[in-house]
Amino acid sequence: MPRGDAPLGVFDSGLGGLTVVRALRQALPRERIVYLGDTARVPYGTRSAETVLRYARGCARVLIERGVKALVVACNTVSAVALDMLRAELDLPVLGVVEPGARAAVGALGRLADAGGARIGVLGTQGTIASGAYPRAIGRLTTRVEVVGAAAPLLVPLVEEGWLEGEVPRLAVERYLAPLVAAGARVIVLGCTHYPLLAPLISEVAARLAGVEVAVVDSAVATADDVVAWIDDERIPSAPVASAPATLDVLVTDRPGSFQAMAGRFLGGTAPDVSQIDLAAQA
Amino acid sequence: MPRGDAPLGVFDSGLGGLTVVRALRQALPRERIVYLGDTARVPYGTRSAETVLRYARGCARVLIERGVKALVVACNTVSAVALDMLRAELDLPVLGVVEPGARAAVGALGRLADAGGARIGVLGTQGTIASGAYPRAIGRLTTRVEVVGAAAPLLVPLVEEGWLEGEVPRLAVERYLAPLVAAGARVIVLGCTHYPLLAPLISEVAARLAGVEVAVVDSAVATADDVVAWIDDERIPSAPVASAPATLDVLVTDRPGSFQAMAGRFLGGTAPDVSQIDLAAQA
Repeated sequence: MPRGDAPLGVFDSGLGGLTVVRALRQALPRERIVYLGDTARVPYGTRSAETVLRYARGCARVLIERGVKALVVACNTVSAVALDMLRAELDLPVLGVVEPGARAAVGALGRLADAGGARIGVLGTQGTIASGAYPRAIGRLTTRVEVVGAAAPLLVPLVEEGWLEGEVPRLAVERYLAPLVAAGARVIVLGCTHYPLLAPLISEVAARLAGVEVAVVDSAVATADDVVAWIDDERIPSAPVASAPATLDVLVTDRPGSFQAMAGRFLGGTAPDVSQIDLAAQA
Repeated sequence: MPRGDAPLGVFDSGLGGLTVVRALRQALPRERIVYLGDTARVPYGTRSAETVLRYARGCARVLIERGVKALVVACNTVSAVALDMLRAELDLPVLGVVEPGARAAVGALGRLADAGGARIGVLGTQGTIASGAYPRAIGRLTTRVEVVGAAAPLLVPLVEEGWLEGEVPRLAVERYLAPLVAAGARVIVLGCTHYPLLAPLISEVAARLAGVEVAVVDSAVATADDVVAWIDDERIPSAPVASAPATLDVLVTDRPGSFQAMAGRFLGGTAPDVSQIDLAAQA
């Protein structure tokens, strides 16, 4: 049985997974968290499934060595292409973001006033879209909804560059969203943890293209709900920390540099302390 | 003394260095070339100097194991931040792209009809611009020219996405070029081997912003000239291959996939055969 006082391990290719950490800290303020962002090898979304799996194994190993009680894969690409392998290989619970995101999308579609025949659209990296993970996950929840996807490789660099508004991100978002909206998408899943920073723009552009309300779904909160459910199911005792909020350790594989400033934006608060580790030396 | 029949080793973070290979094959059609694109870890330009050096050492080791007689670092970021270390550590000639690019830029400025007080502008990755390598290299050639630089991190993803024309690349290029042109740049150095694919757009936007002719400089041809000069200086016998063009071996560290199709575009001809190697296994 997992130790209640062990931390949760969360990893992502870079910064984006901190949006999941933010949701986890709101849902579970007494849980210690160790976060690993593989900034020396970001982005994962343009790489092959084999390479993503290899990188994900390295990240998992670092967190397991730090004694985490469960792994939260806060990266859509890893969740889409490598989750089953990680679950088969590792001896601890592994939770991803695609299943919660699919559930949130189906829920959002159900809440639309006039959703007859509407589809779910997924924006994601090339790896996530090519994997078909979202259509599969949504198909396990309902067989009555069609899913359309679009790979949007420029959105991660736009977020990393901090271009969140203005003509360049607007036109890029428009170009990626147009075929989804034209195909009848009324719910857009942000299938990459970087995209929530572009959510206001995505929401505005989708509504303008569609001429009607379009729901924009971020899987961070749904993922935190999954972690809460796992903790309840396993009857893991509450982490015996003295007071909330518990510690957050942030590890990165390249020099912290601009990561630290950006990290505050993703966490929705002050910038955390960030330490660099050498992933190659751990291999 | 290097063996004349040994191949030249050329490496880059990804595809871009193939523009240098193209120039090398035109200048030296009888030389065998082994090219390595580190596609599993591209891009280098956003990473710290320490990480870039570590990755560059790994690439160099692969090529040295294949018996190359010299290394051509066809990556501006590696040339800017790691060339001196590689030269100190490795027991073979190491040629970069920054020195030839600087020379080509100074030459282009001299050829402008009315260049009094004009500056040289450099577009590059964050790593290249932060290193100050271009101002240093140009300063060794002339003390009378001021250099202004702009980091342009979105241009590599735009090229990799194949968005070479249209509003998004036009606005992004405009945003990066505007401060350079406003500062008096009349020569723009393409300080990243990805950028030549955007050269027509960069040229057009720069001329429109400046209201006068602006020279756009690509270091690929100047780099090939350096390799020719080295071969002449060292009196290396011509490679005894039966006929030109000699073989080109292309290695990548992630699955070839879309690389192969894109590679033809960079080489200006047919797509080469591409093999995947495991860089981690070589470490």
